[in-house]
Amino acid sequence: MSALGAVETVITGATVLASTTRPAPAYPSRPAEDTAARGTVEFLADHAIGIVDGGIAWVVPTSTVPQQILDAAEIIDGRGHVAIPGLMNSHTHSPMSMFRGAAEDVTTADWFNKYMWPMEMNITDRDVYLGAQLAIGEMLLAGVTSFADHYWATEQIARAVEESGARAQLASTFFSSNGAAGLRSSAEFAEKWNGAADGRITTALGPHATYTVTDADLEATADTARRLGVPIHIHASENSQQTEASLAKRGVTPIQVLHDTGILDAGTIIAHGTGIIESDLEWLVPFADRVAVACCSKTYMKNAHSSTPVRMLHDAGITVGLGTDGPASHNTLDMLESMRMLSLKQKDVEEDSTWLTSAHALDLATRQSADLFGLGEKVGSIQPGKRADIVLIDLAGPHYQPLHDLAAALVLSARAGDVRTVLVDGRVVVRDGRLTMLDLSEAIAELNERIPALTDTSNGTMQEYAP
Amino acid sequence: MSALGAVETVITGATVLASTTRPAPAYPSRPAEDTAARGTVEFLADHAIGIVDGGIAWVVPTSTVPQQILDAAEIIDGRGHVAIPGLMNSHTHSPMSMFRGAAEDVTTADWFNKYMWPMEMNITDRDVYLGAQLAIGEMLLAGVTSFADHYWATEQIARAVEESGARAQLASTFFSSNGAAGLRSSAEFAEKWNGAADGRITTALGPHATYTVTDADLEATADTARRLGVPIHIHASENSQQTEASLAKRGVTPIQVLHDTGILDAGTIIAHGTGIIESDLEWLVPFADRVAVACCSKTYMKNAHSSTPVRMLHDAGITVGLGTDGPASHNTLDMLESMRMLSLKQKDVEEDSTWLTSAHALDLATRQSADLFGLGEKVGSIQPGKRADIVLIDLAGPHYQPLHDLAAALVLSARAGDVRTVLVDGRVVVRDGRLTMLDLSEAIAELNERIPALTDTSNGTMQEYAP
Repeated sequence: MSALGAVETVITGATVLASTTRPAPAYPSRPAEDTAARGTVEFLADHAIGIVDGGIAWVVPTSTVPQQILDAAEIIDGRGHVAIPGLMNSHTHSPMSMFRGAAEDVTTADWFNKYMWPMEMNITDRDVYLGAQLAIGEMLLAGVTSFADHYWATEQIARAVEESGARAQLASTFFSSNGAAGLRSSAEFAEKWNGAADGRITTALGPHATYTVTDADLEATADTARRLGVPIHIHASENSQQTEASLAKRGVTPIQVLHDTGILDAGTIIAHGTGIIESDLEWLVPFADRVAVACCSKTYMKNAHSSTPVRMLHDAGITVGLGTDGPASHNTLDMLESMRMLSLKQKDVEEDSTWLTSAHALDLATRQSADLFGLGEKVGSIQPGKRADIVLIDLAGPHYQPLHDLAAALVLSARAGDVRTVLVDGRVVVRDGRLTMLDLSEAIAELNERIPALTDTSNGTMQEYAP
Repeated sequence: MSALGAVETVITGATVLASTTRPAPAYPSRPAEDTAARGTVEFLADHAIGIVDGGIAWVVPTSTVPQQILDAAEIIDGRGHVAIPGLMNSHTHSPMSMFRGAAEDVTTADWFNKYMWPMEMNITDRDVYLGAQLAIGEMLLAGVTSFADHYWATEQIARAVEESGARAQLASTFFSSNGAAGLRSSAEFAEKWNGAADGRITTALGPHATYTVTDADLEATADTARRLGVPIHIHASENSQQTEASLAKRGVTPIQVLHDTGILDAGTIIAHGTGIIESDLEWLVPFADRVAVACCSKTYMKNAHSSTPVRMLHDAGITVGLGTDGPASHNTLDMLESMRMLSLKQKDVEEDSTWLTSAHALDLATRQSADLFGLGEKVGSIQPGKRADIVLIDLAGPHYQPLHDLAAALVLSARAGDVRTVLVDGRVVVRDGRLTMLDLSEAIAELNERIPALTDTSNGTMQEYAP
């Protein structure tokens, strides 16, 4: 008998991205030839992945799998494909797919004040459900198996997650202008839905930002998070202007506000953090085990914001995850694109083409993003004991060939359209490039019909962007 | 009888990108609401395109096409698709697809001296042929119908162009270190192949760069170009360091060198120009009718170079075309990606999210790129009288939906994998996402086998990068 136990599903013949390592810090002082400083990535050629009860049982050379195990399992032919861990979108607003392209080539203030916040006055629960469904479909087809979401009407999003087979960490957004009901309903949602959908749904509390939620409410949020055992997900230091405005108005940076109100101590995803400055490390580093920053490079370029200081955070040991932000600003929910934009923008902004290697980008997109979700033990790599969140990408296209460097191919050549098969929790949610559990036709038709009503800005807004 | 004449092919039911306008200059001084300053783009819903003798005969509402014309023609169903002009790659080194991924995360000097130039010592004519074939296949599948190429063994590239159905402007590269034979063979190639392949091949002279070709040879090149009636294609001011080095060594910028040696007067494509400074406008502006700059944003970010000063060139009336550079630095030959990177990088570098609208990006990618090729009368828009270089992109994917803004969708959401049908000169070269005239399997297999021999750097190099 083989040492390999019987499994339900076997992916055969794939090149498996088995592991990545976090590059050593203090990269600038190390030579570019220092492998530890560049990060490493391990690919296993012609391997098979055995899946049972939604988890990865073994990863072995295909030739060593006994025929009787293959005969008893569903076989997914991975030849010509690379198997990577399911991509994890560290920050988005999935239902905003309904506003994709609705506010283009405008300033950040206009984007909020003239477009998004007035348009969001028109949203119904059904719009949120359909928007989430459309977004989840787009993500699964692009190999994005998990997303950390921040929006309203989260029960609708949870329903779409449940039905789709995806994995998500959902936070219900609130402003202090909502009064006490804001935090209360965010907490109620977090408590009710944490662990739902066979554990595919986890939750977080969703204070909107340091400039829209008062310090008192942030303190109450931190207390609630500790009580419920869930993290927080908040926009902070979204651009340099916000940091400067906060320093001018209050004498403290947004990150110090997170520190002083206990948000960092309770554990949080910081969305964007492009305005994080060196002195903020004093507040962040003591909580490096429970704080992570979500970086969405395409959004920053499009909005002419500064960039998340990935190198400074890396050297300080702070986890960075990759995200897409909402599709109303990012236009897509494509994490392969997010990884590529990170790689290019980081080389550009650091004026160092040897920085942020493709191996490092893959580590950020997989292992570190899983850590950001608090799911580092569960997903983020293709290893026995992890859940089977796996993506097969077809490498046959001429844009990958000849194949000198698979890490570079994944970061700089891969397209979402080359994703052929996607599993979440061992279940096939995309087969041959098609969704197995979702039909998007209704969402697409209905949301297109809703465009005139959704984009009516005559009702004014409840908020004003003036950080 | 209808006013529409009989045609061979009709594309029916498509949304047609009919025209773009070049935004008015001096954008910074105009309000963002000024439409002329933002650029305009015209889409025609449910239109039909009639094609005869490889040219566009008419573009009319589908419902107005008489059945007898449809009955007599080959019908291409364009419903659910947008028809855009064939994309034009304004600067590349197509055979370098053979080195895609072979020198990653390195400095520019190492890229040349430790990798590319030693590796290029190993190239055979067959490698060039296969590399060009692979590159052309990748481009056609991505809707790139034309490319301006700069490489050696151009007879091999011409053969691949001829067989593939693509359109190309080919320049045979030379260095002054090649002696007089360099310019001579570049000129012989240009003379022999100009107008070949039923006019799909045009040619240019290919001096490598201002730092590898002497002033005397540049002067001779300009004379030869005028004599043959072909333009020049040259790398110049590739990054700020080159401009600074040229000023320090010679007291003139690379652009002034092009001026003083007559290259600008003869007409030239300037590859990159990221080191162009304001005083260079004095040299460029008088030749705005025959000089254009090719911008390849992804390569600049990857190599931590500065960016082509698109806004300054735009305000000065200099044509800018978009390109991919060679796939050894850009990793892909994807012009949709090139257009997206341009849009994002330009907003980023100008710190202005209202600059370089999607309409403007489309104008750069189509009409202005056609002008760069010197083919503005022939291609670059879908209008009667132009050659039928047309690309159909499927808009059904969730990443386009709901469809608020088609220009933004093309610039910020479109993926090369959504290209379904491509025509060059009225001939279908891609149908249902597959090449009709090329089979890449041999090129892919053979180039992968060639990797060890191609990447052997033990033979040293003929050149050194030290601008």
